[in-house]
Amino acid sequence: MITVSVDLGERSYPIHIGPDLIGRTELFAPHITGASVMIVTNTTVEPLYGAKLRAALAPLGKDVSTVVLPDGESHKHWETLNRIFDGLLESRADRKTTLIALGGGVIGDMTGFAAACYMRGVPFIQVPTTLLSQVDSSVGGKTGINHPLGKNMIGAFYQPLAVVADIGALGTLPERELAAGMAEVIKTAVIADAEFFEWIEANMDALNRCDEGALAHAVKRCCEIKASVVAADEREGGLRAILNFGHTFGHAIEAGLGYGQWLHGEAVGCGMAMAADLSVRTGRLDEAARRRLVAVVAAARLPVRAPQLGDDRYIELMKVDKKAEAGRIKFVLLERIGQPCVTGVPADMLRATLAASV
Amino acid sequence: MITVSVDLGERSYPIHIGPDLIGRTELFAPHITGASVMIVTNTTVEPLYGAKLRAALAPLGKDVSTVVLPDGESHKHWETLNRIFDGLLESRADRKTTLIALGGGVIGDMTGFAAACYMRGVPFIQVPTTLLSQVDSSVGGKTGINHPLGKNMIGAFYQPLAVVADIGALGTLPERELAAGMAEVIKTAVIADAEFFEWIEANMDALNRCDEGALAHAVKRCCEIKASVVAADEREGGLRAILNFGHTFGHAIEAGLGYGQWLHGEAVGCGMAMAADLSVRTGRLDEAARRRLVAVVAAARLPVRAPQLGDDRYIELMKVDKKAEAGRIKFVLLERIGQPCVTGVPADMLRATLAASV
Repeated sequence: MITVSVDLGERSYPIHIGPDLIGRTELFAPHITGASVMIVTNTTVEPLYGAKLRAALAPLGKDVSTVVLPDGESHKHWETLNRIFDGLLESRADRKTTLIALGGGVIGDMTGFAAACYMRGVPFIQVPTTLLSQVDSSVGGKTGINHPLGKNMIGAFYQPLAVVADIGALGTLPERELAAGMAEVIKTAVIADAEFFEWIEANMDALNRCDEGALAHAVKRCCEIKASVVAADEREGGLRAILNFGHTFGHAIEAGLGYGQWLHGEAVGCGMAMAADLSVRTGRLDEAARRRLVAVVAAARLPVRAPQLGDDRYIELMKVDKKAEAGRIKFVLLERIGQPCVTGVPADMLRATLAASV
Repeated sequence: MITVSVDLGERSYPIHIGPDLIGRTELFAPHITGASVMIVTNTTVEPLYGAKLRAALAPLGKDVSTVVLPDGESHKHWETLNRIFDGLLESRADRKTTLIALGGGVIGDMTGFAAACYMRGVPFIQVPTTLLSQVDSSVGGKTGINHPLGKNMIGAFYQPLAVVADIGALGTLPERELAAGMAEVIKTAVIADAEFFEWIEANMDALNRCDEGALAHAVKRCCEIKASVVAADEREGGLRAILNFGHTFGHAIEAGLGYGQWLHGEAVGCGMAMAADLSVRTGRLDEAARRRLVAVVAAARLPVRAPQLGDDRYIELMKVDKKAEAGRIKFVLLERIGQPCVTGVPADMLRATLAASV
């Protein structure tokens, strides 16, 4: 087991990474100080890991309840979130009740937001079971739900007490979900670490076949990079925006097709190809680097061609991106691999990228 | 104009108190740095002060929109909150859009919670127009909504950039609303300042007839006391619980009758009489002090007899109070006027107080 520390002063927390961690009582024990625990999971993950987690908690002698939500991004809205609040209130959860998010990014985002809001804040632990959530959504404290007019528009910055990233859980992931997580692995390398990007190029086969050593290294490196970015800018004042490389286009794809059609990681994979195109078009990135990025995205079995939504619809959707200010869209682009920048772009170049990407 | 400063480090903010403040552009200007402002108000307050506030904002040249919500505690739930999010997204509000809460505690709590959650946090200003919200809910950063199983169960700690408490607005308050606010004035004195309590006893007539000087002094002293309590315990770890004097009983009354039947302040007024009874019964407070407190509550035209809900129902409702832990109810009781304590009580004494109070 490797432990990465996220350094946020009094809100600092450990990320434990390794195989077979869900069953380890001692990883949970220090963070459960009240009389009760509520596990929040979904219909897919509960049959796989619910019993194992409850067995790990049993020696602690707490009152453990479980809320099982429907699976998928299309359920990441208020009505589903409210089922967590109903469960908490019906079980008389108090301010010391610990919430445990057992599942992927949707479960983590909703459980974290519920923990942030229930009685104005209760403790929570993340047990991410997908690659995407292990490398991305369990680091940084972003929680929230979608609104029909925009993704993650309603939420909170709220840190977990600990993250338990069980690499073994990735073995049960559908191939499409593994690929979606790889999009964030590639993104993390591309914005921060050219050497790690080269390592991914060299190890994509091992990653694709779920080699535990390769996955553990990728998760560890992503958590380290993201932790350092978040530590420098917890509330997304500036630097942290680079983590949204590929996301401005990606969010537009997800919203434009309807949440749940493309997985978040698939949209980000394609969004990175689009952002690389725009980076070349605006004279930043060289064409060879763009081709390497697109090749890695494709090797991860992710889409590199954008869906047909129409230019105007793309632009309209991007204007509600949280990085936008007064209707001006800001993009994360690349100077080179490992070197991002945040900038506006001329409208004609954006339209050229949209035309070239579908 | 008097300005009370709430000292919370980088989240510190001023509370401006005085007559005719809603129209003063310079009180708002420093806190509006983005391109747009959204005023959130209700159907009662909009016709009284909406135009005045918009006129004050006009010289700033911002894009100003207004969301008008239905009036009353019974609307303090997710569906109403979501109308603020709809308005923000439809008007393309961004991370620098300032929300202004123009109204009483319900508007302040919902607008503050919307500001805490929209894009994970946007700036907001409170313009409290009721006595209750000027003395209580605009200080301390508590925001939130109700759940059918409990009041203020879903929310956030989130501080405004400034509070503009226009004493002139209290002149248009219905008598019942003024009285409800007086409950929090009395509560603030009783938990912290015996001299201020004596001042209230001596000045209740002036307060009841809306004397601006008397009201300004009461609002100022309440804000100072609450600000010092909140500065010592922003996240309600301990000391801050004393602010809930009268509220454990009061919340049970509100929830038991259905939100909106009794005003919050009416329930707190009666709840203080009940807490005083329990304080005497458990050997803390002397009977003369209890009589003084009940007399002041009655002089403020507040109820001192509790509604018939049945003992078991009262106890069940109090167990979901946020101060409860593992089902044990904690009460704020009085040692003497100005000296509170937080404690559990024997079940038979609680039942005796419930029996004596209806």
